[in-house]
Amino acid sequence: MTLSIDLNCDMGESFGAWNMGQDDEILPFVTSANIACGFHAGDPGVMRKTVAAALAQGVALGAHPGLPDLVGFGRRNMDITPDSAYDMVVVQVGALAGVAASQGGRLHHVKAHGALYNMAARQPELAKAIAQAVYDVDRSLVFYALASSVQAAAAQGIGLNVAQEVFADRSYQSDGSLTPRKQAGAMIVDVDVSIRQVLRMITEGKVATMQGVDVAVQADTLCIHGDQPGAVVFARAIRQALQDNNISVKTIQH
Amino acid sequence: MTLSIDLNCDMGESFGAWNMGQDDEILPFVTSANIACGFHAGDPGVMRKTVAAALAQGVALGAHPGLPDLVGFGRRNMDITPDSAYDMVVVQVGALAGVAASQGGRLHHVKAHGALYNMAARQPELAKAIAQAVYDVDRSLVFYALASSVQAAAAQGIGLNVAQEVFADRSYQSDGSLTPRKQAGAMIVDVDVSIRQVLRMITEGKVATMQGVDVAVQADTLCIHGDQPGAVVFARAIRQALQDNNISVKTIQH
Amino acid sequence: MTLSIDLNCDMGESFGAWNMGQDDEILPFVTSANIACGFHAGDPGVMRKTVAAALAQGVALGAHPGLPDLVGFGRRNMDITPDSAYDMVVVQVGALAGVAASQGGRLHHVKAHGALYNMAARQPELAKAIAQAVYDVDRSLVFYALASSVQAAAAQGIGLNVAQEVFADRSYQSDGSLTPRKQAGAMIVDVDVSIRQVLRMITEGKVATMQGVDVAVQADTLCIHGDQPGAVVFARAIRQALQDNNISVKTIQH
Amino acid sequence: MTLSIDLNCDMGESFGAWNMGQDDEILPFVTSANIACGFHAGDPGVMRKTVAAALAQGVALGAHPGLPDLVGFGRRNMDITPDSAYDMVVVQVGALAGVAASQGGRLHHVKAHGALYNMAARQPELAKAIAQAVYDVDRSLVFYALASSVQAAAAQGIGLNVAQEVFADRSYQSDGSLTPRKQAGAMIVDVDVSIRQVLRMITEGKVATMQGVDVAVQADTLCIHGDQPGAVVFARAIRQALQDNNISVKTIQH
Repeated sequence: MTLSIDLNCDMGESFGAWNMGQDDEILPFVTSANIACGFHAGDPGVMRKTVAAALAQGVALGAHPGLPDLVGFGRRNMDITPDSAYDMVVVQVGALAGVAASQGGRLHHVKAHGALYNMAARQPELAKAIAQAVYDVDRSLVFYALASSVQAAAAQGIGLNVAQEVFADRSYQSDGSLTPRKQAGAMIVDVDVSIRQVLRMITEGKVATMQGVDVAVQADTLCIHGDQPGAVVFARAIRQALQDNNISVKTIQH
Repeated sequence: MTLSIDLNCDMGESFGAWNMGQDDEILPFVTSANIACGFHAGDPGVMRKTVAAALAQGVALGAHPGLPDLVGFGRRNMDITPDSAYDMVVVQVGALAGVAASQGGRLHHVKAHGALYNMAARQPELAKAIAQAVYDVDRSLVFYALASSVQAAAAQGIGLNVAQEVFADRSYQSDGSLTPRKQAGAMIVDVDVSIRQVLRMITEGKVATMQGVDVAVQADTLCIHGDQPGAVVFARAIRQALQDNNISVKTIQH
Repeated sequence: MTLSIDLNCDMGESFGAWNMGQDDEILPFVTSANIACGFHAGDPGVMRKTVAAALAQGVALGAHPGLPDLVGFGRRNMDITPDSAYDMVVVQVGALAGVAASQGGRLHHVKAHGALYNMAARQPELAKAIAQAVYDVDRSLVFYALASSVQAAAAQGIGLNVAQEVFADRSYQSDGSLTPRKQAGAMIVDVDVSIRQVLRMITEGKVATMQGVDVAVQADTLCIHGDQPGAVVFARAIRQALQDNNISVKTIQH
Repeated sequence: MTLSIDLNCDMGESFGAWNMGQDDEILPFVTSANIACGFHAGDPGVMRKTVAAALAQGVALGAHPGLPDLVGFGRRNMDITPDSAYDMVVVQVGALAGVAASQGGRLHHVKAHGALYNMAARQPELAKAIAQAVYDVDRSLVFYALASSVQAAAAQGIGLNVAQEVFADRSYQSDGSLTPRKQAGAMIVDVDVSIRQVLRMITEGKVATMQGVDVAVQADTLCIHGDQPGAVVFARAIRQALQDNNISVKTIQH
C-alpha cells in the first residue's frame, strides 16, 4: 500500500485593491485550495479568479468560511451562537459553490478559517453547527478539521467525510491540540524539523508533543501556509521530501 | 385556455437587529419570493428564516442580488464593470442557492434588485453580464426582468427562461419603460387604477402610457411591494380581482 | 441640597433604510443622548439627524462607540486588543464630535455600547484603553460607565470626569455588577419596582441585590431604554416619580 | 520673492491585514499627507499609525474622505445625493480630526478621494456640499481641490482657504480638466516630461494641453502618488528639480 497525503493551502485572500498571498506560486505544489468567501477576506472577483486558477491547475476547490470580521481577518474570537455559525457557513459555502459552478467546477471540501476553525476545534456546539451547515448544503463535501479535535468528531458524527488536518510548522500538546501561538515553542521555524514532523505523522501516525510524549495523529491533509516569505520554498521542500519517501500527494476522494 | 400570472414580492430585507417588511403577512398572497442576499439587505440568519418561511408556504424561492451598498439599500447607481456585476450576481445567487439547499428547497428564479435592476434594464453590457452569471450558476433558473427591457432581451438571448415583469403601481412610458420615480405621475396610488392596469396587461397584453398611447406588454409576473403601509390590503385586493376575472395565480414553470 | 440625576438614552440606532427606536418620542424626557457612531449602528445621515434633534431639545450630545459588528449590533463579545479598542473609540468619538461641530454643537460625553461596555466593565486593560482614548481626544468629555465597575475606576484613574450609571430595569449582584441577562431575574419588568429601585439608588445610595443584601451605588445617570414597547411610558413615569420626590433631572456638568 | 509649492500624497491606505503603499518611504519627501478615513481604505489602527508617522516627520495632516466602497477603493462613481456627500465628509473629517487630536496633532487640510474628488470637480451641487461639510466641521481647514475646477470654485465661494492642486503625471485638456484616464495620452510616463510640466506650472502658471494650447493654472500643491513602483524615485527627482530651480517645498499656511 502506498501512503498518501493531501496538501492544502488557504487562498483567495486578496480583497478589492489589496493583494495578499502568492496563490499563483503556491498552486503548483498543492492539491487542495481553501478559498476565502468574502466574510474575512476575498471578494466576488477574487473568488472567481482564485477558482479559475485552481481549476486550471487541477487543484480541488474548497470553501474557507470565516467570521464576519474583515478588519480583523477573521482571526478574532467572537461570541457567535451556533445558529449564527450555521448560517454564516451555509451562505459562504453556497457562495463558493456558485462560483465553482459558474467556472465549470464543483466544490470539493470545506475548511473553517481562523478563529472559527479554532473555536470549533474546542466548542462542541459550535463544531456541530458548522458541520451540520456543510452537511445540509451538500453532504458529499469533505470536511477538513484539526486532527483529533472536537470539530473532527462532530463532523464524523453527523456523517461527513472528514479529512484530519495536521500542521508542519506548529508544535503539539499531549492532548493532541496545537500549542497556542502565544506560548513559547508554538511555531516550528526550522524547515527540516517541520518536515521530519510531517513524515513521522504520515508514516508512523504519531507526533511528539511539548510534554515529551508522543500522541497518535491521523494525517489526511497537511496545511501549507501561503502568505509567509518562505512559503514557496517550504512547499517545494515538502513535496521533495514526500517524493523521496514514496508518499504520494493527492486530493482526498469525495 | 386559462390566463395566469405569477405574483412576486421582495423579501428578507431585514438586517441584523433591524426589521423591514411584512414578509409573514405577504407570503400567503404571492407565488414567488425574491430574497435579499446580504449585499444590499439581508444577512445569513434572515436569509435562512425567509427561505424557511417561503418553503412553508409553497412560495417559489428567488435570489434577489443587489449592489454592495448596505447603507444605500442598493438603490444608488454605481459605475460597476460588467465583470464586477457578473461576479456579484454569481456570489449572491450561489449563497441563496446554498441556503435553499440547506432547508431542503431549491432555487427557482433570480431578480436583480434596485439600482442593479434599473441599470440592467437599460445597459446592454451590464444586462448581458448579469444574465450570463445566472446562466453559468444554473441555467434552469427563471430570470425575472422588466418586461420588454434590454435586460429581458439579454437573458433570452443567452438562453434563459425569462419572466417578463410588470408593475401595478407604476406608470409606463411609450417606449415600454417605467416612468422614472422623480417624474410626476410615476406612481399610481389609486388601488382601483392599479388593478385595472394589471388586468388589462394580463388580458389584453397592453398598457396605457403617460404619452396617451397604448404599448404592448407581456405580463408573466407582477411585482407586489411588501414594505409599504397598504401592502397587505393591496395584495388581498389584487388576488380577489384576479380570481374575479378567472386569472389563475401560479408560479412560473422552470 | 437638591438631589439630581441625569437621564440618558441610546439613540441614532437607525441605519440606512432601517429604522430603530423612537428617538423623537424619548428626547423630551431625557437629558443625555448616546448617539451611535456607525460601527454597530448609525450612519452619517442618521448621526446628523440625531445630533440636530438632540440639539433642538437641549439634550447633551454623547458618542456611543461600539464594536465593528453591524450584523450583531455590537452585542457580541469580540477578542479585541486594548490597542484596537483605543483606536475604534478614538475614531468614533472623533466622528461624532465632527457631526456635533457641524451642527453648531459640542460633544458632552461618551458611553461605550453593548459588548464593548460590558467587556470594559470587567476587563481592566480594555477599560483603561477606552478611557485613554476618550481622554486623548478631549479630556473634558464626561465618561459614562457602569457604577462601581472596573471601567468607572479606570476612567477616574486617568483623570476623566466619570458619571456612574445605574439601571432601572436590571437587577444587581452583591458585587455591584448587573445580573447577566441569561440569568433568571435579570430584568425588572414591573415599572413600579423599577422606579422604587431608582429612587432608592438616588436618595439612599443603595440597591438591593439578588443575594438579598444591599450594596452601595452612586447614581449619577440613569439609563432609559428607547427601543422597547413601553419605553415612552416608562420615561414619563420615571420623570413624574423624580419630580414627586424633588429630584431634579439635569445634565452632568463638564 | 521665492516660489514655493506643497507636495501632497495619499497615505494610510492599508486596511486590516492588507498593506498598501510605501508611506514610510514617501513621507520624507512630502509636506502634506492625505490620510484615508475608513470608508474606501484605512481602518482605525492604520489611521493612528499614519497620523503618528506623519507627525513624526512634520508632515501636515489631511483627511482624505472617500465613498463608502471598500471593495472598489472609492474609485467607482456612485449616485449619492449632496446631503449624503455632506454627511460622509463630516464623519470622515471628524474621525481623522479625532485621531490627530489623540496623537497630539491637529488636522490641517481635507482632500476628497477618487470618485468623490472627480465627481466634485464637475458637479456643482456635490462640490458645494463637500466644501460646506469641511467648513462646518472646521472652517480653518485648507481645502485641496483640482486647480480651476468646480470644486475649487465652490470651496472658495464658501470661504474656505483653497489649495489648487496640480498633477505631474497627468495631461491636461484645454478647459483645464485632466484628460480622462481611459483616453490615450492621459498619463505622462516620462519622469523628465512630468518634471518639466510641474516646473512650468509653478514658474509660469501655465500648462500645455492635449489640444496644443496653453491654459493658465495655479499650482499650490502637487500630488505625488505613493502606491506605484517608481513612487520614491519620482519623489526624490521632483524634490531635486524643485531645489535646483529655487522653488521651496512647504506646507500651505492655515
